[in-house]
Amino acid sequence: MTAVMPAGVEYARDLVGPALGAAVARLSPDVRKVAVYHLGLAGGDGWSESTVPARAGRHPGAAAGRGKSGGKALRPALTLLSARAAHAVPEQGIPAAVAVELVHNFSLLHDDIMDGDTERRHRPTAWTVFGVGAAILAGDALLALAQDLLLEDTAPQGLWAARCLSVAVQRLIAGQGADLAFEQREDVPLAECLAMAGDKTAALMACACSIGAIHVGASPELAMGLAGFGAHVGLAFQLTDDLLGIWGAPEVTGKPVRSDLRARKKSLPVVAALQAGTAPAAALADLLRDSAALSEPELARAARLVEEAGGKSWTEQEAAAQLAAAHACLAQAPMPDEVRAEFASIAEFITARQW
Amino acid sequence: MTAVMPAGVEYARDLVGPALGAAVARLSPDVRKVAVYHLGLAGGDGWSESTVPARAGRHPGAAAGRGKSGGKALRPALTLLSARAAHAVPEQGIPAAVAVELVHNFSLLHDDIMDGDTERRHRPTAWTVFGVGAAILAGDALLALAQDLLLEDTAPQGLWAARCLSVAVQRLIAGQGADLAFEQREDVPLAECLAMAGDKTAALMACACSIGAIHVGASPELAMGLAGFGAHVGLAFQLTDDLLGIWGAPEVTGKPVRSDLRARKKSLPVVAALQAGTAPAAALADLLRDSAALSEPELARAARLVEEAGGKSWTEQEAAAQLAAAHACLAQAPMPDEVRAEFASIAEFITARQW
Repeated sequence: MTAVMPAGVEYARDLVGPALGAAVARLSPDVRKVAVYHLGLAGGDGWSESTVPARAGRHPGAAAGRGKSGGKALRPALTLLSARAAHAVPEQGIPAAVAVELVHNFSLLHDDIMDGDTERRHRPTAWTVFGVGAAILAGDALLALAQDLLLEDTAPQGLWAARCLSVAVQRLIAGQGADLAFEQREDVPLAECLAMAGDKTAALMACACSIGAIHVGASPELAMGLAGFGAHVGLAFQLTDDLLGIWGAPEVTGKPVRSDLRARKKSLPVVAALQAGTAPAAALADLLRDSAALSEPELARAARLVEEAGGKSWTEQEAAAQLAAAHACLAQAPMPDEVRAEFASIAEFITARQW
Repeated sequence: MTAVMPAGVEYARDLVGPALGAAVARLSPDVRKVAVYHLGLAGGDGWSESTVPARAGRHPGAAAGRGKSGGKALRPALTLLSARAAHAVPEQGIPAAVAVELVHNFSLLHDDIMDGDTERRHRPTAWTVFGVGAAILAGDALLALAQDLLLEDTAPQGLWAARCLSVAVQRLIAGQGADLAFEQREDVPLAECLAMAGDKTAALMACACSIGAIHVGASPELAMGLAGFGAHVGLAFQLTDDLLGIWGAPEVTGKPVRSDLRARKKSLPVVAALQAGTAPAAALADLLRDSAALSEPELARAARLVEEAGGKSWTEQEAAAQLAAAHACLAQAPMPDEVRAEFASIAEFITARQW
């Protein structure tokens, strides 16, 4: 299946880009410089063009990179649709879309430091260019700015939207905390790993899908349905991303083949494989326990062992199940049919197999 | 003049400590561990005792350390008074006091990383114990938690208080950004340096002094008066702290004598001295331009040159002027007399000369 970027993503990019640029322009010059670089903003008036598809690690934002420049407007597209689901015009979703995108990039800025990642979207990461301190501060600024944008709306919905975002931010932080802690642990149960992905990836996606509607005063029924859809899509996305981290082609992922194995990440396919209790699982554990860098043949063997231990098939099935659950949420939530169809196409796009 | 800690600071410590512990208990375990350590919380039920007075760098929070454990409750004390200024009971100020204290500690956690500081309150800083990543994340969590606490109050005042805090956070970040940028610049005008202190230190102090009143629905007149008082107190505090950074006794500051000169910080007395255009100013510039570590005799000479170039007297006069302006704001703002007297005593306490 080939991923064709839905038109809504490109549309969101054009609509939200200038507002994002205007928001970032409010930052003080020293901080703004770093934020503009990280966001790839051209002169503060929207996203610059990026013709190289990229995938930058475990971060959902990277997904969009698989389509031309699209990744950068994935969450904004979901938020504009969210506003439309509540019968508002897309423009009414812009502040919430900007806020979600700012939070997403706050987390990328800080995660890149924590993970020691030196490249994102085929460019050096902000901390490698401006220093750790400046990158920490730019992340802080984006988080604070996101909340401020929503609080400017003095209607009650502004407060609800701010709370929706705040809850997502806290889960995102909890998820990243768990992820960091996993690195120090030998055996992480699959359930904990899934919970971590739910916090780190799915919570902000659930927010992106519901905050637009919440911000225009949607019914709790619609808001809950959209949040459920987003949470399932978020997990399906993470599962797909983890599959790409092992079996994705470099031209799709923008990273060397089997990069997650190379980095010994406790990604979902690996954790699922390790807990199989079979001979391939034990062999995989032995291979990953060794502290020396894995050679290319060892990496190939590790990928094979994950597959033989059932890690790949489990992840594929779980991704499909999450996608199905997302569609079920979508079917039940009250919204215009064309909006539902656009949500569905974005869900399919970001979980499309490319390996 | 000896600094005697006002009773309100100890009172705030007892009243706000448990609420702070309860707030931090909401964090996920991996993140909470770091936050509890940084805050010096004992078992999550309030601040632990600390018998050693300390001063930890340029951060205002450290001021309280000059009195027994008091520094930790300086902003909370101001926020409880702020609620009382609006004729509320102190307990009504607790959520706002906790939020301000969380933001203050978010900034300390991140600043310690940026500045490479290895010690705070006579203990190793969080990043040296748990790693940079975990400390970044704990700071993020405290910032997000602070906003969430205020947003839980669905009354309109909750939104106003959240905005008050959000504005302070953004100024704080802008100030830290300017401070980082100053390190790379040879000549920083005094006005820019004062503006930086206004953002980095005074903005959160202004918030602490007004947010309690705002959160209980105070009149704009009172809120503005309290914010003005806090801004001036914040600047007076920073000027005092900068004097201590050069002339403070180690037993007062918890740091080696002349620590700010040792670190070549562009503190206000130094910047004021450098721009004097006199022979001592030129000699000071020469001394500080040298990249080699300054010897003890050189440090003593640098302190003398700052004094001869007028940097010390300018800073003392400016601190006194800011304190006077603070008192003027206080006199004009409508509030019960006993509250005004307590505000005044805290202002005197945190700007008391100890060199």
